[in-house]
Amino acid sequence: MPSADKTGLWLIGGRGSVATTTIVGAAALRDGLVQPTGLVTELPPFASAALPAVADLVFGGHDLAETPLTDRAQALAQAGVIPPWLPQAVADGLAEAESNLQPGISPDELGGPPLGLVRGLQGDLEAFRARNGLSRVVVVNVSSTEAFAAPDPAHERLPALEDALARGQPVLSATGIYAYAALAAGCSYVDFTPSLGTHVPALFELARARGVPYAGNDGKTGETLLKTALAPVFVSRALRVRSWTASNILGGGDGAALADPSRARTKLDSKRRSLEGILGDDVELPVSIQYVADMGEWKTAWDHISFEGFLGTRMRMQFIWEGCDSALAAPLVLDLARLVARAHEAGLGGPLAELAFFFKDPLGTSEHRLGQQFALLCEWATALPVEAPA
Amino acid sequence: MPSADKTGLWLIGGRGSVATTTIVGAAALRDGLVQPTGLVTELPPFASAALPAVADLVFGGHDLAETPLTDRAQALAQAGVIPPWLPQAVADGLAEAESNLQPGISPDELGGPPLGLVRGLQGDLEAFRARNGLSRVVVVNVSSTEAFAAPDPAHERLPALEDALARGQPVLSATGIYAYAALAAGCSYVDFTPSLGTHVPALFELARARGVPYAGNDGKTGETLLKTALAPVFVSRALRVRSWTASNILGGGDGAALADPSRARTKLDSKRRSLEGILGDDVELPVSIQYVADMGEWKTAWDHISFEGFLGTRMRMQFIWEGCDSALAAPLVLDLARLVARAHEAGLGGPLAELAFFFKDPLGTSEHRLGQQFALLCEWATALPVEAPA
Amino acid sequence: MPSADKTGLWLIGGRGSVATTTIVGAAALRDGLVQPTGLVTELPPFASAALPAVADLVFGGHDLAETPLTDRAQALAQAGVIPPWLPQAVADGLAEAESNLQPGISPDELGGPPLGLVRGLQGDLEAFRARNGLSRVVVVNVSSTEAFAAPDPAHERLPALEDALARGQPVLSATGIYAYAALAAGCSYVDFTPSLGTHVPALFELARARGVPYAGNDGKTGETLLKTALAPVFVSRALRVRSWTASNILGGGDGAALADPSRARTKLDSKRRSLEGILGDDVELPVSIQYVADMGEWKTAWDHISFEGFLGTRMRMQFIWEGCDSALAAPLVLDLARLVARAHEAGLGGPLAELAFFFKDPLGTSEHRLGQQFALLCEWATALPVEAPA
Amino acid sequence: MPSADKTGLWLIGGRGSVATTTIVGAAALRDGLVQPTGLVTELPPFASAALPAVADLVFGGHDLAETPLTDRAQALAQAGVIPPWLPQAVADGLAEAESNLQPGISPDELGGPPLGLVRGLQGDLEAFRARNGLSRVVVVNVSSTEAFAAPDPAHERLPALEDALARGQPVLSATGIYAYAALAAGCSYVDFTPSLGTHVPALFELARARGVPYAGNDGKTGETLLKTALAPVFVSRALRVRSWTASNILGGGDGAALADPSRARTKLDSKRRSLEGILGDDVELPVSIQYVADMGEWKTAWDHISFEGFLGTRMRMQFIWEGCDSALAAPLVLDLARLVARAHEAGLGGPLAELAFFFKDPLGTSEHRLGQQFALLCEWATALPVEAPA
Repeated sequence: MPSADKTGLWLIGGRGSVATTTIVGAAALRDGLVQPTGLVTELPPFASAALPAVADLVFGGHDLAETPLTDRAQALAQAGVIPPWLPQAVADGLAEAESNLQPGISPDELGGPPLGLVRGLQGDLEAFRARNGLSRVVVVNVSSTEAFAAPDPAHERLPALEDALARGQPVLSATGIYAYAALAAGCSYVDFTPSLGTHVPALFELARARGVPYAGNDGKTGETLLKTALAPVFVSRALRVRSWTASNILGGGDGAALADPSRARTKLDSKRRSLEGILGDDVELPVSIQYVADMGEWKTAWDHISFEGFLGTRMRMQFIWEGCDSALAAPLVLDLARLVARAHEAGLGGPLAELAFFFKDPLGTSEHRLGQQFALLCEWATALPVEAPA
Repeated sequence: MPSADKTGLWLIGGRGSVATTTIVGAAALRDGLVQPTGLVTELPPFASAALPAVADLVFGGHDLAETPLTDRAQALAQAGVIPPWLPQAVADGLAEAESNLQPGISPDELGGPPLGLVRGLQGDLEAFRARNGLSRVVVVNVSSTEAFAAPDPAHERLPALEDALARGQPVLSATGIYAYAALAAGCSYVDFTPSLGTHVPALFELARARGVPYAGNDGKTGETLLKTALAPVFVSRALRVRSWTASNILGGGDGAALADPSRARTKLDSKRRSLEGILGDDVELPVSIQYVADMGEWKTAWDHISFEGFLGTRMRMQFIWEGCDSALAAPLVLDLARLVARAHEAGLGGPLAELAFFFKDPLGTSEHRLGQQFALLCEWATALPVEAPA
Repeated sequence: MPSADKTGLWLIGGRGSVATTTIVGAAALRDGLVQPTGLVTELPPFASAALPAVADLVFGGHDLAETPLTDRAQALAQAGVIPPWLPQAVADGLAEAESNLQPGISPDELGGPPLGLVRGLQGDLEAFRARNGLSRVVVVNVSSTEAFAAPDPAHERLPALEDALARGQPVLSATGIYAYAALAAGCSYVDFTPSLGTHVPALFELARARGVPYAGNDGKTGETLLKTALAPVFVSRALRVRSWTASNILGGGDGAALADPSRARTKLDSKRRSLEGILGDDVELPVSIQYVADMGEWKTAWDHISFEGFLGTRMRMQFIWEGCDSALAAPLVLDLARLVARAHEAGLGGPLAELAFFFKDPLGTSEHRLGQQFALLCEWATALPVEAPA
Repeated sequence: MPSADKTGLWLIGGRGSVATTTIVGAAALRDGLVQPTGLVTELPPFASAALPAVADLVFGGHDLAETPLTDRAQALAQAGVIPPWLPQAVADGLAEAESNLQPGISPDELGGPPLGLVRGLQGDLEAFRARNGLSRVVVVNVSSTEAFAAPDPAHERLPALEDALARGQPVLSATGIYAYAALAAGCSYVDFTPSLGTHVPALFELARARGVPYAGNDGKTGETLLKTALAPVFVSRALRVRSWTASNILGGGDGAALADPSRARTKLDSKRRSLEGILGDDVELPVSIQYVADMGEWKTAWDHISFEGFLGTRMRMQFIWEGCDSALAAPLVLDLARLVARAHEAGLGGPLAELAFFFKDPLGTSEHRLGQQFALLCEWATALPVEAPA
């Protein structure tokens, strides 16, 4: 029964740059066209973790955009995100994923009764699972950052949330509805964005109640990755950081979204949190994001760190990080899908604090130090029980 | 018996910038004039380690230079290494250390019979101990980097070394003679430089035989500190580093010494080793050092890291580190003296691998990752027995 | 008649960092305590321009702040802007300037009838001139950047402006009132800020009518200085700049003022203009300013320039500028005072386009290229007639 | 008589990266496939200079390597130097140049009688001219940097040189022989390298005697370009540069050649000279070059500039230049060929100081400031007589 081994990876924002790079890369890995560079789960510590193989992932997703995946892949090749020869070489894999993509919720629909939307999304997930004979489905949110939204009392507890939804109240944002639909349908859920729509305790309660894993928030792909590796240096050497100023310039869809101040706020809060968690809150930590269309899929961060050493002597460190966001995020999406599917199999429900290594604003833990997060991840992954406890 | 609590800190290169900053800083800390910024051993994990107090350190040392410590301190204040008001405020502490400084071995003497030199140095150490009623003495080498020297067969085993010395053969460089003298006199020894003169297995054997701790080599104060914190990021994210190019510009005595290619070689080897230990040896790791007198006591490093991510996408990171070498090194000298004296008291002899956190080229371990080194240090320090085993 | 040789330099914002550094520096130069580093007018091309000597400048000014100049000078010495020994050495010069400082216009007074305010300011200028026997007075605005203000129809022509003022209408901002008062009193005027309050055609008309020089706007002290030197490189090599992104971090009073978005707008417009003037308007030119209190009197700019070469090949340049704003601005204030006083003596009235070298947003010219501006300045200065034409 | 309009461009090092990029680019421009980005001679000031069209250049050259140009072009496309679609699109142009390439002088031949080598090279040039019906030929040296060679007395005057050659003495290096052959055959000569082999007064005398132009040395393509634009900023603002430290990392053939210290010396001398020419010789100007194979055709320079402003305040500027050497050099080769052919037509013989804009170490002038060099170039080009004087 080969179909029993298949795991579904359902991407919210399934035609975006991260999703397309993920789908292209998984097909290239399956066909042995590339090395598994960037894939954490291919490192030696994970060899014994019995994770689902990348070749056994089946892709689908929601996206309101209609550009064919092959066109998106060509555009990414032109932008230097993936090699020029690759889109053609993985045409089959792209076609398979294309056949599993659905439009999702439109802005117009958002005003309507939420449970109707939920049932529509669940229908898509069920059809995906049935058609492809999947043993389980991981839903990963890689859509653009949502605007900042005020918390609602119905977010606190699951009964209150279900009551509000039953009464047709619009208490969930779009990403909240996607997450609710996924969890209630028994799918595990990964929030790779800083969107607050899913930062809702009632949803964590739902994940626990349904016995499905929940991972998030906000993939740690670049500047924050470095911050959480560098800040412990200053702490362990007793050097006093006085200010850590971050300036980001980026293009692409993500850059355009963040040119909207209310979306930027969500992102900036997420970026700041990890450094505060390590350095404490008496350090100046300004962050700016500038949209520069010319940067395309690339992102440059300049961080200026001013610190004090012995006898108050002032010193400085600066770094410049030039990364391709989709190329950094895509392998982590595969890593998370494999780890979360495995955790699901092992019977773990609710937020997974042990995946903090992957996130700017990790759920269920205040550990932001990258080294410690990696040690925790390795230990956890190798100790997962082979079968879910009875 | 108050004198039983005093620990001697004997500095080879006792009038240099690092030594002077260390002496000034210890006096300022004793008098409560400054915060213990930069002192690792004042962090919470070391609170229960029963280390000797900074206030209980007594300073002495060898140096061929004759400039009074107060003049050196004034010069450092002018260069911005220490606050302008501080030399005057710690005049007593400087005078006390001044009274304990001795000339050491001159280049002319080096050709002569080595055991005569050894006995002379031991006489200085004995006099320092007796005059100040010290329970133990830690000798720390903070002199300039020695020229590269070829290894000698007599370096391998202690009997061979002692035999060669007894026959008057010049098998040890200057730093080797200082180390031999210290260890044979029952003093613990810390090599804070990259000098090969003390990288001699027979000396480690001597330390074990005499039951005195030995720590080294080459204080990890700046660029290498960052390298050993950043390289693990690439490893744990499965990103393939292709080249890591380091360019250093520095002035001061250290810069002038490194303008001599044979001394630079020793230093460059030491700097390269830590990165190879983490990234493996198939990565290009060029390092350059340029002497720029105008930089004075300051040092700037520019590192350019080229790496490959998912699907072979090439990315880059660069950092610029602007540090004051003496201000970075001095608190580590105090940390090492406290930790090594405590290890001596606990009965530990021979190389201390657990102090790897402080060194570019740590003895007795291949662990170069900063985070792991810090965890190891904290664990070790808090588990030291209160008394030496009988 | 020695008093006939004295020139007054009246500083709006006379207790600020730029003003204090200017006053300290002029005194130090007069007493031969320092080299004239940073003073353009001491370069060889100006040797024959018959400029007033720095030693013959007499300082006064308006400021609402009340901190004594000696305290301000001490604070600047602590911040590393001026040498620690200097405030004491120029105590006499500071005391003389202190005796000429007046409070200026308070925010409360601004609502009242403008001509009353004008007369008050003119009284201060007249008293300064008379008391010190000055042949002429140059008023230089070095106050904080004003908030963005909408233009008013009365700004267009002098009669309309004078009519509005006579009717008591608040058509001028604070800096507009200072400028009007100065020009109407026969003083020349230099706008060293990006404030729009004085970017008023009617004021230029007034300067022409009264035969007094007018110079501005916005001193070109750091990042823009480099931009206007570097942008011509790309133009003359036919390289196509695609984006030039500037990120500024700064502390001090200027930084705090620019944390206010309406003030930042004025500054950002001024910064952007010079690059557009050289590169054209089809280039992305984002600029951000972040306030970081920890930076104190220092300012760091990171510029990221993305350009295209032969056959469309994409390349990059980045620069990091770490400057002390007051130390960069103060000598230019002295330069401008000398040049403007000399132009006044030579009978030149109205905006001086030939001083474009000093300004981000120069009046009366579209020449932004630094090299050309310097050539123009040298030519003009050396050709000034010795006496005003009859 | 269409053939009368054709100009030959003969490249020494005709299969290298710069030559291949030049040939590909000229073909692409001729066919209208790309914009003339990077071509100085296509800027408005040169519109009236009656330069030969790029489409009328015919390519040939010497190279000991045997890799076909199409393979070199493919390799450059893979390295990102030229667009991936371009080598195929200009296959005709590559084939035409390929048919004109000759092997040149081998190291074995260098020991032999020099005039025999000269005659062989001249035979190649004559055949090229005749076969393609060229009105004139410009020889451009774009081969690797030669090792440093001691000057010879025969270099000083033409009669001495001709005498030594006639007697079979090996007084010229390989590039010297190429230059002698070209000039004696009535071809103009451009030295785009820092090689000393052609920095020989007797060769300039030969150029004058034969009435052919001579241009050089060492194309100013990257870091030095910026240095000569930035250094005048400090001079014109009276800021005192204390040290200007350059660190270069590069791969490719050029990088490998410069890993040889004797070749590096030639290059470093050339790089230092331009900055000394502007700042004077009391500034520290260290330069380092590190070979990093991973950099491929790309080059990164990090410059650290330490300077002093008003009252001695110390400040810093740093820049990072990430350029593709061949893409920067190739359009300048086309520019130089057009300008030098036009000068030849106008009857100008000997070194052309007016082309200083293109060179690190310009012949016949001490003007290193980029802005002044550009002004001089424009003025000269637009004033060239249409016909050679009788």
